[in-house]
Amino acid sequence: MDRVFGFAGGEEGIWKVGSMRLVRGEPLAGVGRLGVFGPGEAYPAGTRWLLRGIVSNERYVGRAEREELRAVQEGLGRPQATRGALIPIRKSPAWWDLAQDERRAILEEQSRHIRTGLRYLPAIARRLFHSRDIGEPFDFLTWFEFAPADAAAFEDLAGALRGTEEWKYVDREVDFRLSRE
Amino acid sequence: MDRVFGFAGGEEGIWKVGSMRLVRGEPLAGVGRLGVFGPGEAYPAGTRWLLRGIVSNERYVGRAEREELRAVQEGLGRPQATRGALIPIRKSPAWWDLAQDERRAILEEQSRHIRTGLRYLPAIARRLFHSRDIGEPFDFLTWFEFAPADAAAFEDLAGALRGTEEWKYVDREVDFRLSRE
Repeated sequence: MDRVFGFAGGEEGIWKVGSMRLVRGEPLAGVGRLGVFGPGEAYPAGTRWLLRGIVSNERYVGRAEREELRAVQEGLGRPQATRGALIPIRKSPAWWDLAQDERRAILEEQSRHIRTGLRYLPAIARRLFHSRDIGEPFDFLTWFEFAPADAAAFEDLAGALRGTEEWKYVDREVDFRLSRE
Repeated sequence: MDRVFGFAGGEEGIWKVGSMRLVRGEPLAGVGRLGVFGPGEAYPAGTRWLLRGIVSNERYVGRAEREELRAVQEGLGRPQATRGALIPIRKSPAWWDLAQDERRAILEEQSRHIRTGLRYLPAIARRLFHSRDIGEPFDFLTWFEFAPADAAAFEDLAGALRGTEEWKYVDREVDFRLSRE
């Protein structure tokens, strides 16, 4: 199980929780700080909850899109990116009952998910963690890092995605806004 | 972790191992019997190895293909299907570095993987277990069940898939042939 990242909510961790907003479905317990742990790293004691996810292969991005993304995206951990967001989401059984081509059509051809994210690169760095197949309460942990000056752009991005056809299939969502010194 | 199936090789289990053939890469230890365990089921003591996999959403099958498959396929556990095969496979880093559209093109447009499997339905019942994201030594555990009279058809199917462009990306493969009373 050495590909599993952990997001530990409690009173420890480099990320301070500025806000937690329940968007849909069951809430998570409120926490003051969030720690992010790579595969094999030990979690601190006293964690209130632990969300786990895996960096897996991409499921929808095509070759041309990937080249566009890679040409402009920047990695996590940039010194100036002192703002973050963790948005765990779960999609409905109706989503998972769709075939691959139907999910792709809703995600990109109708909802422009990939195209929209691209518009906010490199300012908003993103990483997707897959959780559904490891029996987690959410299907995905979506993670974002950006500079304070790009906070408004992040609101635009989050709002744009939430307004899409794809998001109608999201049945649980919690939005954590984070900062680090 | 309640979606994980286990395939336990040892001297117990309803499936008797008729043959084990190393097709490519590292071997597995030889065993006399194989047990298959659903999520949450306890494994017997004395297992020599345990391979784990998850039934996940389909990654390549489109809506039209799925309807064709569902119209003719039959489930696992048919009383007459007393022959089985477990073929764990791993694909190379080159495969996993491909984008979704490239993997789909190799798997189906070039290799006719879905179409070939369809030709052998309902005789050869199949299930795919995903293992890569849970840190297993193989990426997939492929499972087949058929009646003794369909054993030659199964050889055809296995041979057809192994001759494809897709199979050039398989870098570890072990082939177990099984029977149950």
